[in-house]
Amino acid sequence: MKPQTAPRAITLLTDFGSGSSYVAQMKGVILAALPSATIVDFSHEIEPQNILEAAIYWMEAVPVYGAATVHVAVVDPGVGTSRRILLLELEQGGLLLAPDNGIAAPLIELHRARSLFSVENVALFRASISSTFHGRDIFAPVAAYLAAGGEPSSVGPVVETYEPLELRSPTVEILDQRCTITGEVLVVDRFGNLMTNITRDLLSQFGAAPQLALSSAEVILGATSIGAIGRTYGDVEQGEVLALFDSQGRLEIAVRGGSAARRFGAATGARVRVVLDPPRA
Amino acid sequence: MKPQTAPRAITLLTDFGSGSSYVAQMKGVILAALPSATIVDFSHEIEPQNILEAAIYWMEAVPVYGAATVHVAVVDPGVGTSRRILLLELEQGGLLLAPDNGIAAPLIELHRARSLFSVENVALFRASISSTFHGRDIFAPVAAYLAAGGEPSSVGPVVETYEPLELRSPTVEILDQRCTITGEVLVVDRFGNLMTNITRDLLSQFGAAPQLALSSAEVILGATSIGAIGRTYGDVEQGEVLALFDSQGRLEIAVRGGSAARRFGAATGARVRVVLDPPRA
Amino acid sequence: MKPQTAPRAITLLTDFGSGSSYVAQMKGVILAALPSATIVDFSHEIEPQNILEAAIYWMEAVPVYGAATVHVAVVDPGVGTSRRILLLELEQGGLLLAPDNGIAAPLIELHRARSLFSVENVALFRASISSTFHGRDIFAPVAAYLAAGGEPSSVGPVVETYEPLELRSPTVEILDQRCTITGEVLVVDRFGNLMTNITRDLLSQFGAAPQLALSSAEVILGATSIGAIGRTYGDVEQGEVLALFDSQGRLEIAVRGGSAARRFGAATGARVRVVLDPPRA
Repeated sequence: MKPQTAPRAITLLTDFGSGSSYVAQMKGVILAALPSATIVDFSHEIEPQNILEAAIYWMEAVPVYGAATVHVAVVDPGVGTSRRILLLELEQGGLLLAPDNGIAAPLIELHRARSLFSVENVALFRASISSTFHGRDIFAPVAAYLAAGGEPSSVGPVVETYEPLELRSPTVEILDQRCTITGEVLVVDRFGNLMTNITRDLLSQFGAAPQLALSSAEVILGATSIGAIGRTYGDVEQGEVLALFDSQGRLEIAVRGGSAARRFGAATGARVRVVLDPPRA
Repeated sequence: MKPQTAPRAITLLTDFGSGSSYVAQMKGVILAALPSATIVDFSHEIEPQNILEAAIYWMEAVPVYGAATVHVAVVDPGVGTSRRILLLELEQGGLLLAPDNGIAAPLIELHRARSLFSVENVALFRASISSTFHGRDIFAPVAAYLAAGGEPSSVGPVVETYEPLELRSPTVEILDQRCTITGEVLVVDRFGNLMTNITRDLLSQFGAAPQLALSSAEVILGATSIGAIGRTYGDVEQGEVLALFDSQGRLEIAVRGGSAARRFGAATGARVRVVLDPPRA
Repeated sequence: MKPQTAPRAITLLTDFGSGSSYVAQMKGVILAALPSATIVDFSHEIEPQNILEAAIYWMEAVPVYGAATVHVAVVDPGVGTSRRILLLELEQGGLLLAPDNGIAAPLIELHRARSLFSVENVALFRASISSTFHGRDIFAPVAAYLAAGGEPSSVGPVVETYEPLELRSPTVEILDQRCTITGEVLVVDRFGNLMTNITRDLLSQFGAAPQLALSSAEVILGATSIGAIGRTYGDVEQGEVLALFDSQGRLEIAVRGGSAARRFGAATGARVRVVLDPPRA
């Protein structure tokens, strides 16, 4: 413990369901160990055992948080098997505590980890450990220990590897000077906006090339042309469709004041293409 | 900043959905700026872009809170247009931060505002501002600034006007000494209780008049008589219908131990009448 | 008040619905009285007026919490009648504040109460008390008073009795040396796991007896044999069924990576039997 350190905040991401007593039990363990803990509920509505959804959630939310945070994810289809629990520190700061099942993999790849540990120090766990609820018996007490200023290296041995996550990347095809980037819908938000895995960074690589103009891009959802990439919802009238970059820098297809998901019957996985042509002479 | 001030609490009301990472991102910005922040989730289940529902929520909840609170509402169909963001201080204390789209209007009219500001000081915003997510990029950092004791007047210029909200008021008709007040269902709660826009204050104006007796009032939902206005659920047996005043002083139609919404197939907007007769001689 | 005491945390369990302004109003009253309050949302998704569901939730969550906690339950079909409000202190510490309708009864029976009080001291309530929302007008201010270190005995007179709760217990039948324990599904979690009212403690009484072997137990859901009692989800392959003890020590029927509730069309109340045979010679 380093009592001079202000406590780290703890965030919780699970698939337990918002009204579940599992969440309340985790918080009880944390608060019993650290009554002054700041606990933030990320979401408990991850689809049961959907590791990909949890990983995308973390990609969106974790980078906004300061270094003095312990992010805990318990989406854990492998509980009760020999799967490891990982603790890692991102280079930008911030601790991630999760089953070693790929949830943390995209953040490690995007933001690099300083060090990875396998959580094995039973002295930090609850006295009695169930086979079905490590959220309460391992994740919660370890999170409280870390939030109180505990040393990451105390949780267990350093490890070198972690489970990867299969995140499909967009493909790029260049034919007769025309560049086609093919991706898919990654997230549908509550408004029915469709967020894709095609990023501004990726498009800029091609659009910034002398022979291709991002301003001439055409966005296509399935077989439906959405048109050019706009700047803001205000670019179109109520009820009209537009493509723009979302708050994560991802290509988004939206209907102003409406739902693109409903309008186009689109869900996660739907194919999205961006076609970049060379500027006309 | 006034470091001697204890931090104000922050409440959040949005239409992002309870499990949305949008909410988590807002909290990340707040906690990074003010690690000791107290954040209260009002609701994230406002129907997408339903300004009226958000305004009613604020009318119910805000007056209970102390002066040392920053209430933030992000129900913002106009994000990405030139709509303003308002900050205002209620006369009774308490800061309201919301898009200038009518959410705050009923509270201003009921409780008066000391001062209105247009939130424009980019020095208080996040370094990079997306066109789609001002909740994270503007509302959250400004709320943290205010919670930390920042001066409301620092957020931008004073403004004199704000967008109103169309809230239908009950109508009053007096004919042959009989007074009929016609209103509607404003809110249906989870129990199926029907809260109307007819208030005890309004009825008292008429019921207290010498020629009309509130005790003789008859409440009518659509074409169904509910009977007189009772005092408490205990006035009737399980499964019976009654009218009474709710915890906001609004006329409520309820079924004890059941759902008035289901019993009568009633939803928000359903017509409710109260008929006041002169006392019989 | 005892200002030297660190504040107790407050937990809230209601049937108001997660997005309800009723919850926000309760928190407003608490924070106005005690700005430094730590408030934990247990659940607001208890089925309206379902006392049994609330009682089971408390049985699961309360014992994890430390002594410095005020647990508040507002599932209150009797609001507006003459039902009492109970405050009690568990022997292990921890205060429970609830309508006297059975919610607290199982915890009192399992963990014993040091003292019971009837909450009647109006000096601790809000100035104006509605007939429909004691959560805001009585429970919240009393909880804040207790969290701030207020004396439990100040809330009202000591009482000796409380409303019981009908919790069906498993039955045990012994015939020809074969022991059959018949219980039911108590809780279905979000994963579709079926938690029963048959506990490890109960089974151990019989399984530990010389003539009966727990290792030979057969679990039967309705008319379907689930097999022996395993140790962990990892004992079976993906998609296979198993019985094991859950994190509360209750017999659980689960499908690894799937939903036992869906697989068997089972819900709360479904019959579950455990058959214990004497070891074969």
